[in-house]
Amino acid sequence: MEPTKAFFMNDYGEGAHPLVMQRLMQTNMEHTCGYGLDAYSLRAQELIRERCGQKQAHVHMMTGGTSANIIALSAFMRPFEAAICAPGGHINTHETGALEGMGHKILPCEAREGKVTPEGVRAVCAAHADEHVVKPRLLYISQATEVGTVYSLSELKALREVCDACGLLLFVDGARLGSALVSRGCDMTLRDLAALADCFYIGGTKNGLLFGEALVIVNPALQPGFRHMIKHGGGMMAKGRLCGVMFLAAFEHDDYFAWARHANEMADILREGMESGGIAFYQKTQTNQVFPILTRAQEEALARAFAFEHWADLPDGRCAIRLVTSWATTPEDARRLADALKEMGNEQT
Amino acid sequence: MEPTKAFFMNDYGEGAHPLVMQRLMQTNMEHTCGYGLDAYSLRAQELIRERCGQKQAHVHMMTGGTSANIIALSAFMRPFEAAICAPGGHINTHETGALEGMGHKILPCEAREGKVTPEGVRAVCAAHADEHVVKPRLLYISQATEVGTVYSLSELKALREVCDACGLLLFVDGARLGSALVSRGCDMTLRDLAALADCFYIGGTKNGLLFGEALVIVNPALQPGFRHMIKHGGGMMAKGRLCGVMFLAAFEHDDYFAWARHANEMADILREGMESGGIAFYQKTQTNQVFPILTRAQEEALARAFAFEHWADLPDGRCAIRLVTSWATTPEDARRLADALKEMGNEQT
Amino acid sequence: MEPTKAFFMNDYGEGAHPLVMQRLMQTNMEHTCGYGLDAYSLRAQELIRERCGQKQAHVHMMTGGTSANIIALSAFMRPFEAAICAPGGHINTHETGALEGMGHKILPCEAREGKVTPEGVRAVCAAHADEHVVKPRLLYISQATEVGTVYSLSELKALREVCDACGLLLFVDGARLGSALVSRGCDMTLRDLAALADCFYIGGTKNGLLFGEALVIVNPALQPGFRHMIKHGGGMMAKGRLCGVMFLAAFEHDDYFAWARHANEMADILREGMESGGIAFYQKTQTNQVFPILTRAQEEALARAFAFEHWADLPDGRCAIRLVTSWATTPEDARRLADALKEMGNEQT
Amino acid sequence: MEPTKAFFMNDYGEGAHPLVMQRLMQTNMEHTCGYGLDAYSLRAQELIRERCGQKQAHVHMMTGGTSANIIALSAFMRPFEAAICAPGGHINTHETGALEGMGHKILPCEAREGKVTPEGVRAVCAAHADEHVVKPRLLYISQATEVGTVYSLSELKALREVCDACGLLLFVDGARLGSALVSRGCDMTLRDLAALADCFYIGGTKNGLLFGEALVIVNPALQPGFRHMIKHGGGMMAKGRLCGVMFLAAFEHDDYFAWARHANEMADILREGMESGGIAFYQKTQTNQVFPILTRAQEEALARAFAFEHWADLPDGRCAIRLVTSWATTPEDARRLADALKEMGNEQT
Repeated sequence: MEPTKAFFMNDYGEGAHPLVMQRLMQTNMEHTCGYGLDAYSLRAQELIRERCGQKQAHVHMMTGGTSANIIALSAFMRPFEAAICAPGGHINTHETGALEGMGHKILPCEAREGKVTPEGVRAVCAAHADEHVVKPRLLYISQATEVGTVYSLSELKALREVCDACGLLLFVDGARLGSALVSRGCDMTLRDLAALADCFYIGGTKNGLLFGEALVIVNPALQPGFRHMIKHGGGMMAKGRLCGVMFLAAFEHDDYFAWARHANEMADILREGMESGGIAFYQKTQTNQVFPILTRAQEEALARAFAFEHWADLPDGRCAIRLVTSWATTPEDARRLADALKEMGNEQT
Repeated sequence: MEPTKAFFMNDYGEGAHPLVMQRLMQTNMEHTCGYGLDAYSLRAQELIRERCGQKQAHVHMMTGGTSANIIALSAFMRPFEAAICAPGGHINTHETGALEGMGHKILPCEAREGKVTPEGVRAVCAAHADEHVVKPRLLYISQATEVGTVYSLSELKALREVCDACGLLLFVDGARLGSALVSRGCDMTLRDLAALADCFYIGGTKNGLLFGEALVIVNPALQPGFRHMIKHGGGMMAKGRLCGVMFLAAFEHDDYFAWARHANEMADILREGMESGGIAFYQKTQTNQVFPILTRAQEEALARAFAFEHWADLPDGRCAIRLVTSWATTPEDARRLADALKEMGNEQT
Repeated sequence: MEPTKAFFMNDYGEGAHPLVMQRLMQTNMEHTCGYGLDAYSLRAQELIRERCGQKQAHVHMMTGGTSANIIALSAFMRPFEAAICAPGGHINTHETGALEGMGHKILPCEAREGKVTPEGVRAVCAAHADEHVVKPRLLYISQATEVGTVYSLSELKALREVCDACGLLLFVDGARLGSALVSRGCDMTLRDLAALADCFYIGGTKNGLLFGEALVIVNPALQPGFRHMIKHGGGMMAKGRLCGVMFLAAFEHDDYFAWARHANEMADILREGMESGGIAFYQKTQTNQVFPILTRAQEEALARAFAFEHWADLPDGRCAIRLVTSWATTPEDARRLADALKEMGNEQT
Repeated sequence: MEPTKAFFMNDYGEGAHPLVMQRLMQTNMEHTCGYGLDAYSLRAQELIRERCGQKQAHVHMMTGGTSANIIALSAFMRPFEAAICAPGGHINTHETGALEGMGHKILPCEAREGKVTPEGVRAVCAAHADEHVVKPRLLYISQATEVGTVYSLSELKALREVCDACGLLLFVDGARLGSALVSRGCDMTLRDLAALADCFYIGGTKNGLLFGEALVIVNPALQPGFRHMIKHGGGMMAKGRLCGVMFLAAFEHDDYFAWARHANEMADILREGMESGGIAFYQKTQTNQVFPILTRAQEEALARAFAFEHWADLPDGRCAIRLVTSWATTPEDARRLADALKEMGNEQT
């Protein structure tokens, strides 16, 4: 609503990618049955299974990330079981206690650059050994992480190993999975991820859809009863076909990855601007989030022309801001912002 | 997709009303902030407050009926408090134990034609008087009811009185509120309802929107903390503006009621066909659901050209079916179905 | 506190049987480890396993009936799963929504004389077939029932069969198990019960202990993690040995059954008094609860010398009262009450 | 069961103080009504109100600490509200996720020597300001703390102030309240505590009773419906009078404090032994828990004659052990242990 400012506030500030809207329009007056049992949903599920290389996986369309997290995690754990995650894990810090609302404790563990470490997981498990404490049952990670970093394939394999050793399920929050998988730093494919995780989801909300996350349950032991869980958790849409139509649009020609690649490229422009101006990164990232460190005066100046989020106050009086790009970011806006950052960097030095 | 059959299966079998889609398209590339704090959502909330004649009410956009029911009811009750409803109340029979999942018992009470009676409510309260049983705290009703009937203004006032006498909140599930308020049998306005209920919602999913229910919290004591509850319950959408845009489309020129009126008129055509053919009603209704009694052979014959739901088996070997109309039902389809019913009625006699 | 009235109010109106108190005194100053891992608890568990003929069963000492019910049932069910029980089942009517508080719906089913019927169970299962409704997972029955009746061995076998056919666990609330097993009408042993149930408990509170129910988990699939569940549910006592000592006292010479037999014999005296006077039974029973029908004037007269509970108002103006006997009831009190009832019966005719 | 070892393992290793057992024996065969509505319970509640100087307080007898914590805290908070506590707070670390099981997140905050700091509380509140995070609602502290330290009156007042400023309730876990209030370091009376807390409990299990904690709800806004909560939470005992009789025994002549004073004096003997031998304290304490630092060899040697708990491994290869005294500790055992410690201290230097 402030049309004059270029938008770097987040990756869910618009509606859907025009292709998605076009498909919704095309199918709008068709009659289908409800609750995700329609032909569009079934085809989208089939397509996603193929892309994941997991023919036997179950795919469910969820309305949003928090809903996906709490319905899945509470389906997979017994009442006294707990989820391990990074201190800044979304379930731990930004879901208003939703998982605790389902009855489960969250155990924060050591993380570096937003990424959980195998030693951290082991330490938490070692500290939870008798019946007076919760029993760790599931490792929750985000790919990309909440701070824009990406697990490498070897890092993910190491977590899979520690999960196997400790009797943990591996769950991957993929709200920004597209951006992670196509990032320069990433040596992992969707198939790799699907082969290593017990369950994960492919985020639609932050990559071109109106809403929706495609939850992929790879581990057969976790599949039974999940549609009951969705309804029980208030997450089943009457017009379930919407997600079907939208995910079909995103995956039938792999536009999903193209959109994410665009977002990352726009972020690359910002990173290049920062680097050439010598602006420090609060957190180095490879995805569609960029965290420059600015002086307060620079933050204010930048805010006149660009919409973004204040992220953190630094001890030296400066601050970090968060810039987010998306499928909708224009190269013009990105370049304009990169130039502004470069100039500010030159001021700083 | 069986395109050749006319669709009377339910009122959520299509996407959204074309006007709603048009508004979504028009605003699609605009940037807004998330989580329902954007200008569209704020304007939609203001408009709904006006239409309800309740300037101080809080309006929240919910993603669906079950989600609205469980988040609201669990916000309003303490752990040992229970909701009273009709035996066939949606929370009791078709939400996979979602409200119990939030920790609350449901107490079924006497109902006639799907409508809770004041005596029924009183009897339940009288039977729950000490600390060894749950404490009734809220009366849940649906307008229209699950079987298509409508509370009159005097019936609603009588329930309000019994709620006041028994210390109960009055909550109205309005998944089909449009159809109820414009039905021939209804002598109640939206303002009347808003003046009598502590909280209710205006259903969008079943009357022209892609999804969404506008929850109106009239009672100020129930308003604090509700956005926390929505997030905690997994019901807060990143792109909250979608509901804002859609409800604005529905209410700025009161199309919401026009769409519902159309649905009822299509149902009237069916009812007239039945009556002129002498087909019995399993349940008399005034809204967009119609329940004819057919022989099994007739049901099968009808199913060749029309999509509908089998509803109940009768002791005499016949059955009831459910026909649902909506904003999307065409007069041609309705007349064709009415004619078929009329003919079948003539066969029966 | 009204010492002049003979006590027939309930079977938990005193402390513990003197033998139990003696054992608590004898062991009082011994040091043991906590939380039910002491030698007394282990021996009591072993003894109960033997008496049940189930060497591999797990036995846990619970603090009370409601606590045992909700911890066990929530350990055994997934969030969308429900328990079936008689309409008057304790979990449904007298636990203040405790099981719903753990997230589970209760599905009442047809019962005769307080006893669930196989057809009733089948009907409930048949009505809960898709993901829009809860999934029945467990049949909860009480032996003796809440109204003092007793399942026969063939009745229990029939329920076991329907449970197997419908995929249900069979759980037996044994708050009054002693009285049931030694009742004249009962053709079932503790071993029979243990062979048929997936889980049940042996009630101590109502048969001679200060408190405590010995939960026997026969089905190995239900055993893992249960001590976690007890702690998680707030049901683990620091001085867990108390239950160990008390159940040892009750079972090492089978006094448990002797105490229950005494209670039943005292009830027999009341039943004989009623029969010889011609007083009608509100509900025929074989255990330690007796339900005479009296006039209001008779109820008042009786209440001057005896403590008991008013049970139900009858349409004809009369009422039913509840008389409960226990290990602590004296033959003198029982005979005095039987005489009074006999006399009242003669008045009625 | 290892009778030759002197017992310093914990303060719940025996039954009850002989005076308590005597009262249970004396009243054992009396008939009373159930569920804590008997005359003993009422008198105990009245007596506790008096001792607290809070005539209007509500007093409820709870079966144990975890049960008291989760029933009270879930009664006082809405679903999205959270409790703040020390990282080592009992609810956070030793209750198997019981409070999360009731749906509430726990927010650890800065603590020094086990004691929550006002700045820590403020910082947590400042970090939880919008609807995407839980809302802090209650500060949970333990007096004495889990590591044996004691809040001074001024420290408690400072926490009360920060609670008032931040809209928090103040809840005090008093599992070891007796030991705290009579400790040398403590300048606070029971009345002081009662005047500052919204709710707290007086622990019986760890100070002479078989079990039981007397929960005192001072804040009138928190009182309604609490008996419903107890039953709902599985914490209501049929023979509620047991707690009444036991708390009467403990408080009618203030033996409760005498027992705690004895426990502290026994701990003083241990502390003196350590100090005179120069043994370091892992944590300085003023109550009935003592934490010496020993070499591994010393720990092993000590374990041959004394029962205690290994507490922590230190980086330098040594370890901390935990010694706990109680009403049941004999001066002989304490002196023998003190001598052993003194000697070990001399070895160390």
